[in-house]
Amino acid sequence: MNNHFHVRELLIAAFLGSQLVLWGQSAPDREQDRRIEFPDIPGYSTLVCDLHMHTVFSDGSVWPSIRVQEALREGLDAISITDHIEYQPHRNDIPHPDMNRSYELALKAAGESDLIVIRGAEITRSMPPGHANAIFLEDVNALNRENVMEVFREARRQGAYIFWNHPHWTAQRPDGIATLTDMHLELISEGLLQGIEVVNELIYSDEALQIALDHDLAILGNSDIHGPTDWLFRIPEGGHRPVTLVFATEKSPEALKEALFGRRTVVWFDNTLVGKPEYLIPLVRQSLSISAGERNEVQMVNIANSSDAEYLVENLSGYTFHAHADILVLPAHETTILQVKTKKPLSSFDLAFRILNAVVAPGTHPEVTWTVEPE
Amino acid sequence: MNNHFHVRELLIAAFLGSQLVLWGQSAPDREQDRRIEFPDIPGYSTLVCDLHMHTVFSDGSVWPSIRVQEALREGLDAISITDHIEYQPHRNDIPHPDMNRSYELALKAAGESDLIVIRGAEITRSMPPGHANAIFLEDVNALNRENVMEVFREARRQGAYIFWNHPHWTAQRPDGIATLTDMHLELISEGLLQGIEVVNELIYSDEALQIALDHDLAILGNSDIHGPTDWLFRIPEGGHRPVTLVFATEKSPEALKEALFGRRTVVWFDNTLVGKPEYLIPLVRQSLSISAGERNEVQMVNIANSSDAEYLVENLSGYTFHAHADILVLPAHETTILQVKTKKPLSSFDLAFRILNAVVAPGTHPEVTWTVEPE
Amino acid sequence: MNNHFHVRELLIAAFLGSQLVLWGQSAPDREQDRRIEFPDIPGYSTLVCDLHMHTVFSDGSVWPSIRVQEALREGLDAISITDHIEYQPHRNDIPHPDMNRSYELALKAAGESDLIVIRGAEITRSMPPGHANAIFLEDVNALNRENVMEVFREARRQGAYIFWNHPHWTAQRPDGIATLTDMHLELISEGLLQGIEVVNELIYSDEALQIALDHDLAILGNSDIHGPTDWLFRIPEGGHRPVTLVFATEKSPEALKEALFGRRTVVWFDNTLVGKPEYLIPLVRQSLSISAGERNEVQMVNIANSSDAEYLVENLSGYTFHAHADILVLPAHETTILQVKTKKPLSSFDLAFRILNAVVAPGTHPEVTWTVEPE
Amino acid sequence: MNNHFHVRELLIAAFLGSQLVLWGQSAPDREQDRRIEFPDIPGYSTLVCDLHMHTVFSDGSVWPSIRVQEALREGLDAISITDHIEYQPHRNDIPHPDMNRSYELALKAAGESDLIVIRGAEITRSMPPGHANAIFLEDVNALNRENVMEVFREARRQGAYIFWNHPHWTAQRPDGIATLTDMHLELISEGLLQGIEVVNELIYSDEALQIALDHDLAILGNSDIHGPTDWLFRIPEGGHRPVTLVFATEKSPEALKEALFGRRTVVWFDNTLVGKPEYLIPLVRQSLSISAGERNEVQMVNIANSSDAEYLVENLSGYTFHAHADILVLPAHETTILQVKTKKPLSSFDLAFRILNAVVAPGTHPEVTWTVEPE
Repeated sequence: MNNHFHVRELLIAAFLGSQLVLWGQSAPDREQDRRIEFPDIPGYSTLVCDLHMHTVFSDGSVWPSIRVQEALREGLDAISITDHIEYQPHRNDIPHPDMNRSYELALKAAGESDLIVIRGAEITRSMPPGHANAIFLEDVNALNRENVMEVFREARRQGAYIFWNHPHWTAQRPDGIATLTDMHLELISEGLLQGIEVVNELIYSDEALQIALDHDLAILGNSDIHGPTDWLFRIPEGGHRPVTLVFATEKSPEALKEALFGRRTVVWFDNTLVGKPEYLIPLVRQSLSISAGERNEVQMVNIANSSDAEYLVENLSGYTFHAHADILVLPAHETTILQVKTKKPLSSFDLAFRILNAVVAPGTHPEVTWTVEPE
Repeated sequence: MNNHFHVRELLIAAFLGSQLVLWGQSAPDREQDRRIEFPDIPGYSTLVCDLHMHTVFSDGSVWPSIRVQEALREGLDAISITDHIEYQPHRNDIPHPDMNRSYELALKAAGESDLIVIRGAEITRSMPPGHANAIFLEDVNALNRENVMEVFREARRQGAYIFWNHPHWTAQRPDGIATLTDMHLELISEGLLQGIEVVNELIYSDEALQIALDHDLAILGNSDIHGPTDWLFRIPEGGHRPVTLVFATEKSPEALKEALFGRRTVVWFDNTLVGKPEYLIPLVRQSLSISAGERNEVQMVNIANSSDAEYLVENLSGYTFHAHADILVLPAHETTILQVKTKKPLSSFDLAFRILNAVVAPGTHPEVTWTVEPE
Repeated sequence: MNNHFHVRELLIAAFLGSQLVLWGQSAPDREQDRRIEFPDIPGYSTLVCDLHMHTVFSDGSVWPSIRVQEALREGLDAISITDHIEYQPHRNDIPHPDMNRSYELALKAAGESDLIVIRGAEITRSMPPGHANAIFLEDVNALNRENVMEVFREARRQGAYIFWNHPHWTAQRPDGIATLTDMHLELISEGLLQGIEVVNELIYSDEALQIALDHDLAILGNSDIHGPTDWLFRIPEGGHRPVTLVFATEKSPEALKEALFGRRTVVWFDNTLVGKPEYLIPLVRQSLSISAGERNEVQMVNIANSSDAEYLVENLSGYTFHAHADILVLPAHETTILQVKTKKPLSSFDLAFRILNAVVAPGTHPEVTWTVEPE
Repeated sequence: MNNHFHVRELLIAAFLGSQLVLWGQSAPDREQDRRIEFPDIPGYSTLVCDLHMHTVFSDGSVWPSIRVQEALREGLDAISITDHIEYQPHRNDIPHPDMNRSYELALKAAGESDLIVIRGAEITRSMPPGHANAIFLEDVNALNRENVMEVFREARRQGAYIFWNHPHWTAQRPDGIATLTDMHLELISEGLLQGIEVVNELIYSDEALQIALDHDLAILGNSDIHGPTDWLFRIPEGGHRPVTLVFATEKSPEALKEALFGRRTVVWFDNTLVGKPEYLIPLVRQSLSISAGERNEVQMVNIANSSDAEYLVENLSGYTFHAHADILVLPAHETTILQVKTKKPLSSFDLAFRILNAVVAPGTHPEVTWTVEPE
């Protein structure tokens, strides 16, 4: 049993400031548990990103520094605070003329940490086009103009990455069915829309996923958080905010932007992964490490899951298992032992699974095959 | 917050014996949580049964009274202690001539409780026929004879219910593939085998399930426990022993026996249910109670799960959901709220699910449809 | 086992707004568990109060509405937001001229709930006098003047209740020893200081307690929270913010104010209660309900603890116990069974305990006696 | 986050026998957590011992092998199975003429493990002398004689260590008050009684402790378990059986026997330690490792608790603490940070605590002083 610090004591220690050094003891496990963890995939770093959130500078209820602290607690690599340009209910109290302010305060709060903070804003219109986020902006203020197409064009002039927010939002689409309008088609054809939220806050949209696939938009999932993230996403304990996993050549703002324009994303929400097979399958493959024991008629196989996803898989191989029916649960950060009834000892055989908690198209789950080579 | 007794105190109270009355307070929740709970189905009571277990009277390591106490703690309705007839490694210390002894001691231990205790024994032979349990016997001693076919016939003469144990056992089938032999076919055709263990201890067999279906044998799952059940089945916490759910006209030994001969069973192991669709589908249907909110374009539907199973279901209806992809988890003893995107308010519509953690044949999962009628 | 709603689903339901009605099901236990719970005492309601907290309107990092939501989640009866008058680091962004603003926003956020919101402010000076809170103000702006004595007098003119904050703060008293200065004595003698924080945030001061006792000041404990309360006080799970329990004739702002002026308070922090014996002893007595079983030589006694405190008590009666040494732990919201070795059956006897987790003076713990009358 | 094996899988792996090797992964934390852990003290190894337990060979309900497995799971160093000589309710089924049998079966079950198994038996008489255990016997059968004094003398002739069991048992002392009789005094003066159970199963006796102190008997605590230890001592989770910590020169049967005759014991039950100060104080001192941070006016001090005891201590130093009143809880296997208000930076000072959950005499708790030397 390891010794842990009593967390209350750590907080008291922090309170005393100058005496913060803790004699080389490790931080409590509990806080580390809330970090979102997925492996890198071949050729890319997996960056955990939330690209949609609010602060008191629009209709949120926390200061930008809280967004940074939340992101650090939850193990995020990058965030963008995207306060509404056209909707600022706290304007009586915060009559800020500079719409870059929440970004600047967050950037300062991030300080020496390695969190990437991206300048962003939410273009907030009735449908069409509804709401859209522009991130990697140079100056948010320049987007504050009446004609909505001009807003998108200005964002693009600044080099921004632009995506459609919650197209399934019932306040704008009472039936919850994400649907493209002519304006959206125009935005896409002008190169003014590169992504779409398939997941926003607690909501998922099969129709938005289909739009992403049909129009080659990046598949995105974000928290759109207004209050504390814990209250919405950590109850019950163990929950997490929805995030976009972005596959970038390195952890830098430039590489992240390039990866987004390259549509190299997978969404992680609840216990579900959503993305194109070219990124989702490598992510599953890197999450699950398969090895086999001594060659045997009933072949033991270890499946070590190094990710936060509890994989839910269906056996597609011709073999049956000695302790499971065809549907398996592979718990997060655990190793599952499988006994494969190969009938005779084999030097090599294939295990194929359909990954049920991964979605590549509405109702469609990827199939992944591993070749197993017993010792 | 309710007041609970401190459990250590309850134990001390019990220790004091004559003062056991606890002023009308309820027993601690913790112990109640370990009771196996499934609803009745139309026309039948659901009896939770474990029909295969051992004591010190063969190669087990506990006295029969412990088997009774375990059963009461785990909410079982019926048990059969099935000590080996031909294998008694403790014979030096327990040179019992009467093989009914473990049954008699268990019956006495059950006392005034409503636990059904069934006289049984395990016929313990090399393959074929391997091991088989005979339960509802009149006198175990009469089965202690050399010719194995005669043993089965004697059991049958006594009116016993007889089933094949762990046909997939690697000690007798190194490849773990349950396979019928001529002797088994003979037993079946003579009416000497009415069931088969598809689950034994921690092991499940798709091939045994296929044999049950092909030869109209009852589908059974039992613990075959030798040590304490907690050590094998309660780690991690929340686990349970495999049991056979038997659908009987009432809770009585006679009704249970009639139900077994009637093949009215479903096996519950790990988080999986295995059985014929005529019993498994009603069990799922009774487990899940579906109701709908006010009529709406995005229709709220409540799914209340009153069973111990965490149902894992795939959406087969034409509708998509507002907060889930097509695979849902319906936690045990919780109500899940679903938002169904029906596009317009409907007075009635169908929800259909494939129940992935239920198995009706190897690789086959039942489909269940509910008609939903919003208010 | 009761059916619980899956909390994520509740949140989704809330998100859908108009469809929020949940068919009469109870809210999840988990959230109820975090409510601070202590019984009333004879003649008074026990009000759970936090009278010191900050928002973005001074150096806090949340909007006033968050303080209200936190209070409702944690079962508080009354809060006062006490933003600094002289210290407003967010002034560049929130150039508010009206210092009543955070109060007004909190009052509006409390809406129809029964949370009492009190207008307050923190007078923020170097030592002496250090920091002080004035609550039940009429207009905070009027306190924004240079001469500190005049500030206190103005608060008093408005009828405010005024108390000294964290007299042990190491930023102002490097040795952490709360110490009265001439200015404090002058404030007290002028009737400008009615209470003192013996607990602030995570810190407790024996010296502040002694000052309270010596100068008849109310004993107060408050959170002084700047970020989310969960981050500071709910780790590990089960923690709570420090609060002042105020014994008022009813739940109303007027009764609360009268009770504070009447010094009828007990502080609850960590697992410790601090207060004058006239309120602390009745609180302990109401928390613990003692009853006895049938008369016996070894007398069973039930101690039901209805409070959040895990009472830690030392046996002062002449009797020994059958299952405990002289130090007992009486867990929160549980009933502990005690066997008292009275040597012969008694119709009545006394149980006396020193309550070790209750403090009436530095190093002094109250003694409470119960007369037990077996049936 | 470390990868853990899914425990069910480990069990399945064990089931498969020949394939048990698990590719170098560590066993699950959960099982390690239940091991009883206390540090050694200067000059001695701390051996965790349970010297009183039953099996089916008297009135217990498990086979001796279960007692061995329980001991290994719970981290015990030594056990003695002490079946009743004069009370064998299972005699109809186990007509064993050899009373050494449960010892022999346990010894065989212990196999290559390093568990010490001691031959023992319970002398089972009405009061006086009540029940007594004789351990380190050569032949239990020789104790089966009528005259009770002769039984003790025979045990002594065999070199046995003999102790009085549960002198407070209400079946033999209805008032629960352990009381010496002339026969006990005779046993002591003849050297036939070297120890006394101050704790038996769930019961503790202050009077037995006083007898131990008055007559220089070893202070012992044992489980006297008849059913599974988990059912009596692991509910709620985290509980443990009572044990005697014996301070021996090494881990061997001979050293253990020498240590028992030397009265070098401390009892560990519930969260309480009971023993003579010469062993209890070193045990507390080794459990708590105290170190100090940089010299400061408010001096940070780390108290690392490496034991299973949650120490409950009262501050006896002249200093007050910055975040605690005078009663502290030092959780098991955690480090607590204390801020000591020394008023000025000191190169050395003393911290003294009364250890409230340790008992050296009825109502008496040891005081322990540490000299703290800031860096």
